[in-house]
Parts: sequence; structure tokens; C-alpha cells
Amino acid sequence: MAVVVMKFGGTSVANVDRIKNVARHVKREVDAGNKVAVVVSAMSGATNQLVAWVNEASQLHDKREYDAVVASGEQVTAGLTAIVLQSMGINARSWQGWQVPVETSAAHGSARITGIPETNIRNAVEAGEVAVITGFQGIDPKTGRVTTLGRGGSDTSAVAVAVALHADVCDIYTDVDGVYTTDPRIVPKARRLPRVSYEEMLEMASAGSKVLQTRSVELAMVHRVRTRVLSSFVAPDAMQPVRMDNLENIGTIVCDEDEIVEQQVVSGIAYAKDEAKITILKVDDKPGIAARIFGPLADASINVDMIVQNVSNDGQHANMTFTVQAAELPRALEVIKKAKSDIGYFDVVSSADVAKISAIGIGMRSHAGVAAQMFKALADKGINILAITTSEIKISVLIDSAHAETAVKTLHTLFGLDAT
Amino acid sequence: MAVVVMKFGGTSVANVDRIKNVARHVKREVDAGNKVAVVVSAMSGATNQLVAWVNEASQLHDKREYDAVVASGEQVTAGLTAIVLQSMGINARSWQGWQVPVETSAAHGSARITGIPETNIRNAVEAGEVAVITGFQGIDPKTGRVTTLGRGGSDTSAVAVAVALHADVCDIYTDVDGVYTTDPRIVPKARRLPRVSYEEMLEMASAGSKVLQTRSVELAMVHRVRTRVLSSFVAPDAMQPVRMDNLENIGTIVCDEDEIVEQQVVSGIAYAKDEAKITILKVDDKPGIAARIFGPLADASINVDMIVQNVSNDGQHANMTFTVQAAELPRALEVIKKAKSDIGYFDVVSSADVAKISAIGIGMRSHAGVAAQMFKALADKGINILAITTSEIKISVLIDSAHAETAVKTLHTLFGLDAT
Repeated sequence: MAVVVMKFGGTSVANVDRIKNVARHVKREVDAGNKVAVVVSAMSGATNQLVAWVNEASQLHDKREYDAVVASGEQVTAGLTAIVLQSMGINARSWQGWQVPVETSAAHGSARITGIPETNIRNAVEAGEVAVITGFQGIDPKTGRVTTLGRGGSDTSAVAVAVALHADVCDIYTDVDGVYTTDPRIVPKARRLPRVSYEEMLEMASAGSKVLQTRSVELAMVHRVRTRVLSSFVAPDAMQPVRMDNLENIGTIVCDEDEIVEQQVVSGIAYAKDEAKITILKVDDKPGIAARIFGPLADASINVDMIVQNVSNDGQHANMTFTVQAAELPRALEVIKKAKSDIGYFDVVSSADVAKISAIGIGMRSHAGVAAQMFKALADKGINILAITTSEIKISVLIDSAHAETAVKTLHTLFGLDAT
Repeated sequence: MAVVVMKFGGTSVANVDRIKNVARHVKREVDAGNKVAVVVSAMSGATNQLVAWVNEASQLHDKREYDAVVASGEQVTAGLTAIVLQSMGINARSWQGWQVPVETSAAHGSARITGIPETNIRNAVEAGEVAVITGFQGIDPKTGRVTTLGRGGSDTSAVAVAVALHADVCDIYTDVDGVYTTDPRIVPKARRLPRVSYEEMLEMASAGSKVLQTRSVELAMVHRVRTRVLSSFVAPDAMQPVRMDNLENIGTIVCDEDEIVEQQVVSGIAYAKDEAKITILKVDDKPGIAARIFGPLADASINVDMIVQNVSNDGQHANMTFTVQAAELPRALEVIKKAKSDIGYFDVVSSADVAKISAIGIGMRSHAGVAAQMFKALADKGINILAITTSEIKISVLIDSAHAETAVKTLHTLFGLDAT
């Protein structure tokens, strides 16, 4: 017997037929004697319709009201899922965020889960009732108002529920069948990883992999929740019910690095095409230059990723290059231009035709020379590196987006990730 | 300064443009210094979609889950209305049933409001904030689960909010501009009633008038809430803001009969075409015959309206005629046929081609001879009466539906209701 959290995203619950498919996955686990909590997103499209109405009502809307409107989508799915489960003879009920309660911060629209009191749902699940919980939403316990976690927040809801239930596994059902060494649409030789460490998954998420939301991985890492990524489109009866000794048969387990026996130096190659590069030319050589540039950007809630500073052609000024999300580029340029007299610079140029390619692996900690290998392989292909950032287990390079596919394939082969 | 509750139904909030129109009605009141609570239904069509999904999930669904799903519609409208009001510079927030809280019985799908603690919304409204409250829904305080009040329940929500706020008036905005002496589509000479008593409105509602939900009138009567019916499709700036001395300028006020100065003997003629007649022929003459027929119908939750018992042609048996809602006719016949051996009868015949015509007026209490006048007028037109029921302030007759319009026009003229 295992305690299992099963999370289904918007495409998995897009209509009542798909919800019936989800219910069959749940029934498989219940029939095997597992204790189950289900976390559901809104039917795909529902949240977009709600957001469109909110924007039609007013572009400048109160985020508390935005949350009240947008959270209704998950409420519908949770109720429908409970009804279908009951029609299959399964003891089930729906729980809204405020009923659990999923307690969050007051940051409406992008709230953080602060805790889930264990009593309510744990008692229900222990008693054999399937708890169908709305993802994405919670309640600010101080005001009693509904909050939402931001797009993709249902993954985080699922991990938080797994923490509250002391679950054996948190299964994230999605439209891919696991985490791959890189995107299989670009590299057909990409391999599914049976296991990946929290740290690697976190770096992959921030480097562009869209499989799991960053915050859900952080939460899983802090609380050591064994999280698994698997496909909801596999026929429910073609899968074995969860047992502690068969988790590795399907999907990808995100877990502690101690649980990964055979470690590669590099586990995966991630890429992100939604970055944009801004270069500020001939910045005045005054103290505090970085603060004068990045302070106004931070005030505008624009995240800066890579930063490179170098001497300009005239040898007397610095050029400053950095990247932001491509969607933020217009706002970032506006901020920089407004602050021109304060910063002091000659000109600013930008480009969205860039891609960030990252090699990620916990093995890098104990292996020197990974960066050198990587730069040499890219140079051999004639690919110019525009910027570099590194962490203990990641090396990212910014390149021209025209070379993105070549770079991913080259690095995938270089680090021995190609399937044989 | 007045405390005003404003209720808007589904067609008045059918899309964001209509919600903006609703907000202009609210702004008119706020600008005049009135304290306002708004009660909204779901966007028209939204509830039908949600109900359709529930039925697709399972015909036999848990009513608690039905409520969780269906209540989401009002949540969306309340949030959108608050956003639009804020965009007009009005201090407003949305309240869901569980937040107010609107406490109800546990009868999911058709719960009754048991009370609204006054503190939360009263404090908000007194402080000048517009409280936008979801109609139709509440919470069972024992279980903490969402309940709904049944179709049309938003009228009742509005009256209950008016009770909690000690409101001066509960304005029900709808798609007609008041309560009429009869349906103006049938009798062009029908007149809008400036005032109508709770008792008359209650009889009109149960006699087929669809302007206000019966339970909302009951609640208004018990708590003496001055309730007004008026149209949301009048241009918001063409109406005067509420003052205690101008309520009668528009719409119809439902109030205590003491507040109605000039009383007519008959205030209105109502009709209902959705009745069906069942006649059980030659019922065995045993004791307890009514219980044997109406017991099984009550067990099947089928409401019986008019009942006539008379001696059959052979002089030795009784025939029993009664009416049910036309939609219930197939189920009622099934129940009667199943109980045939228990009841003991020769045959059963039925017809949905009947109409119930009612004359309603508190003046009947002190005027004799109204029934005789009515029967004579109908007889003069050659209209046969199939059944009769009366209350202290109402006389209803069942007639062939072919004569419905003639009967309504005849009685409207007879009792001096035609506009001059």
C-alpha cells in the first residue's frame, strides 16, 4: 500500500471524456489498495477564457478579484472529477483551496504556498476517500480571500499536498512520458532519464525545460518529495498500479541525488529560445554602474538572467550586455531609455534572435574541464558564444538562435547522451 | 442616504458589456451617497453549460459536487462586476457565499438560507464599500461545503442580504419593468401595479407569474423587506437614484398591505399553462382513498395542486381529478399505474391541454361574491370550469387551454383592471 498524489494538467482534463480517462487512472490505484489524492487543473482553455473576461472588464484589475474569477476553473474540474469517480463506485469528494485549506502568501496572482494543515485531507485520505483537490489556488488565511499561484501552479499544489499527506510519490501526469536528455523533437536520439536529481531538474526548469514548474521542484527538494513525471495518455490499464518497487518502470523520478546510482557527468541539454539580449554601449565609467542599470529593471519586476561586461572599442568605456525574457524586451528597453540620463551611455541595441543552451549534471561537481570541452565543441562548429553563466552543476551559453539546433545536437553527442 | 440591495439576473450580466451597464446602475446609487450591496447571478448560459457537464459526468451525481461545480458561475460574475466597479473609481469587492457567509440548510441543490451573520458585509457596506455578492449559493456551516439554492435562488439571496443589512429597499432588476395586472403579451391593456402586497405577490408567484421566486417573497414577507421589481434595461442615467420618497416613480414595490392605500378587490389575473390534469375513473369506494392515491405521489416528490372528487356516472364509484406540473405528468402516470392494485380503479386518463387562471387580490377578504362573478363571466363566454381552488385572497380555475386567453381578457375587464 502506498500513499499517492496524482496531478493532472489542463490538457488531461480538457473535457468530460478526458476526465473519465483520468478517473480510470485513479481507479487503477484505488483498486490496488493505494490511498490517493488527486490534484487537477482547469479544463484547458477555461483559464484563458476567464483571463480574457477579466481583461475585458478592466486592463488594470484588482489581483484579488482576478484570483476570485480565475480560480473558478479548477473548482469545476474538481467537482466533475469527483462525480465521475463516484459513478465508478469510488468514494471521492472535491476540495477547494479554501476548504483544504491550502494556505498561501497574500501575493495574489502569484502566491506562494505557506502550508497545508494536515488534518482535513489526511484524515479523509487515510479513511480511504479519494480527495480531489483544486490545483493552482489557495486562500490567504489573514484575509480569507482566494489566491492563485500563477501559471503552472498546479504542479506546486500537488507537491504541497504530497508533503501534507507524507505521500510516497507525487505523480505528475502530463503530455510527455518523462524527462528527456533533451527535447526529442530536436534530437531524435534523446533518451528518457529514469531518474534525475532535484538540483538537475531545477536547473533544467530554469534553463528552459517546461516539464515541471520551478517552484514545484524547489518544494519537492526541500521536503524530499519523490516526484515522478509520466504521461496521462498511456492507457490506464496498460500501466501497473504504484508499488514502491516498480516506480522506475515508467516515467522519470525526480529524487535525491543519493538515490541515483549511475551518475553521468552531464544529464541533459536544455535550451531556451525566449531570451532577448540587450547591449548598452559606452556606459559612463562611474562607480555603481551595475546598480544604476539593474536597479530600475528590478523596480519594474524584470528579471535579468546573464550579464557580461566588457571594455568598449575605444578602450575607455564599458559595454554592458545582459538577457531578459523576450516578452519583457519592450518594457526593459523603455526602462533603460527612461534612465538614460541617470545611467549615462551612448546607445542601446537589442536582439531577440538569441538562444540559451545549457549543459546540466550533478557530475560536474567532481569533473573539471566540462566547460572547456563544451566551448571547444561549439567553436569547432563555428558557433560564437555571446555570453556565459555557470552554476555548480550547469553551464549556459548564449548563442545566435540560428545555431540553436546544431549546438544542442553537438553537445548531446559530446556528453554521451545519444541513445544507441 | 439609503441602504440599497441591487440584484441583477443572468440576462443582465450575460457578457462584460452588460456587466458594465449594471455597474453604471450601481454607480448612480453610490454617487448619490447610498450604501450599496449588489447580488449577481451567473452569466446567462453559464449555469446551463455547467449543468450539462455535470450530467455528462454522471446522470446520478452527488448533489454536493453538483453544487461545487454549478456555484462557480456566480463567482465569475461577482469578480468581474467588482473589477468593473473599481475601474469606475468605486470602492468594491466580491464576496462568495462562504465568505459572507450565507448560511444554508444541508439540502444541496435546493438549500434554504438559514441566516447571514451581519458583521462582515454590514461593516463593509457601512464603511462605503460596495459588496458584490454571489447569488444562488451559500455554505452549509456544519460541513463547510458549498450549497446552491435551486433555480431562481438569487432573488432569495438578495432578500436575505437585505435582511442582514437592514436595507431600506431590495431592488430586483429584471427584464420586465414591474409587476403587471396580467401578462401584457396577452392583454395589451394590462397595467403596471405601482404596489402589490407580499400576500398577493406570493399567490401570483405560485399561480404562474415568473417575476419573483416564491421563496424570495416569503422571506421578504417574514422580514418585511420592501422589495422592488424594475428593469435593468432602462438607461442607468435615465433613472433617479433611490430616495425614500421616490421609490414609487418606477417599477413595482412589493410591500406590506398597510402601505397600499387604494386597494382593488382584485389586483391581478395570473395564468399557468404548464399544468396537466389526471382523472382516475371509478375508484373503489374504500376508506382512505385519498391517501392511497396521493401517498405514492408524495413519495415520488410530485406536487399535486388542484383536487376534485365527484361521483362517477354509475353512481356507485368516485372519480378523482387532480393536477400536477406538466413536466411531471409521465412520472405521475407511472406512479398511479404501479399502484393500481393498491388503489383499485377502472382506468386513468390525462391531458396537458389545460390552463389554470387565477384572480388574486387582498380585497377579496372583505368582498363576497367575487367567485360568483367570475364563474358567471366565464360561463357567459361558454368556458367550462374543470376544477377550482381558492385561498383567502385567490380563486383559481382550471379550464381548457384553448380558452386561456379569452378567460384572462374577460376577467381582466370584469375586475376593472384594463388601462383607460
